[in-house]
Amino acid sequence: KKRKDYSFSNRGKTLEDELSDANEYYLTHEIAVIYKKPIPIQVVKVDYPSRSSAVIKEAYYRTPSTTDFNGVYEGKYIDFEAKETENRTAFPLKNVHLHQVEHMSKVVKQQGISFLLVRFSAVDRYFYLPFDQLQRFWDRMLAGGRKSIALAEFEEHAIEIMPKYAPRIDYLKIVNDLYA
Amino acid sequence: KKRKDYSFSNRGKTLEDELSDANEYYLTHEIAVIYKKPIPIQVVKVDYPSRSSAVIKEAYYRTPSTTDFNGVYEGKYIDFEAKETENRTAFPLKNVHLHQVEHMSKVVKQQGISFLLVRFSAVDRYFYLPFDQLQRFWDRMLAGGRKSIALAEFEEHAIEIMPKYAPRIDYLKIVNDLYA
Ligand SMILES: [Mg+2]
Ligand SMILES: [Mg+2]
Repeated sequence: KKRKDYSFSNRGKTLEDELSDANEYYLTHEIAVIYKKPIPIQVVKVDYPSRSSAVIKEAYYRTPSTTDFNGVYEGKYIDFEAKETENRTAFPLKNVHLHQVEHMSKVVKQQGISFLLVRFSAVDRYFYLPFDQLQRFWDRMLAGGRKSIALAEFEEHAIEIMPKYAPRIDYLKIVNDLYA
Repeated sequence: KKRKDYSFSNRGKTLEDELSDANEYYLTHEIAVIYKKPIPIQVVKVDYPSRSSAVIKEAYYRTPSTTDFNGVYEGKYIDFEAKETENRTAFPLKNVHLHQVEHMSKVVKQQGISFLLVRFSAVDRYFYLPFDQLQRFWDRMLAGGRKSIALAEFEEHAIEIMPKYAPRIDYLKIVNDLYA
């Protein structure tokens, strides 16, 4: 349907790297202050070879209880989860965790702005799915319906982000369009 | 000057634990969604003893580029740093990093709410120092002035948080008083 514009290729970057690039652009241009949260790690054993240095010798990844990114944009609280899929026709909801959906729901109740940012990597397409739409597809699954969101459903209920020069993935433009 | 009320003792908890208790209270009572960010860790070596588990075998603590806590409260973006000192008469500014001050300044420019929360542990007193005041004391230091903020200056330019029953450290009450 959509012609691919190779001039703005993601050059093999992960979605997370692309979004960190966008956030760096927003930060240096004083547009917004949004960061990726560090991955939570449970540290079990630390060595101190010298007074000033610590080496972690045993640690484990913990399940994140919230989302990937949060921050502030013109007084608005922004909180979102980014996911990429190799699937060409649908986004499997097993990629999203229940506690993440619950967190996003709490954020929206506090009048924050929350969304899912999905990259269909095989076709190089990006979608901004507002939380209320994610909630609707999530509830459909819980009610016994399909366990994924079809690409065609993204085309209808999400907002497509068209890659451009800088920042490549300008997701705050969508926030502007939706909330300005 | 102030009489200590032992009925609301912090029972040996760190300030961070006390604030996590407050945040847990805010979360379960649907008052706000505020979390401590994970400590950033640079992972160098990971073992996979089985398909489902990963053990980090070598990793290092990185310097945080932002603050301890952030989140959303009634549509407002909240971002703050918590520090405790054993000093009885002043808070040494070496406890705050330049990049943290810079981050807080960017947050305030984006119309977020930012502050320093200081516990004088030896006297069990808590202060909410709005960012603009922190900036003033920071600039004084850069101009060659004192490298700390006197307790007496906190009494004059910060807002004291009086511990109460639940949550013990109700810092959002101060946000309410300042921004309502
Ligand atoms: Mg993610
Ligand atoms: Mg701290």
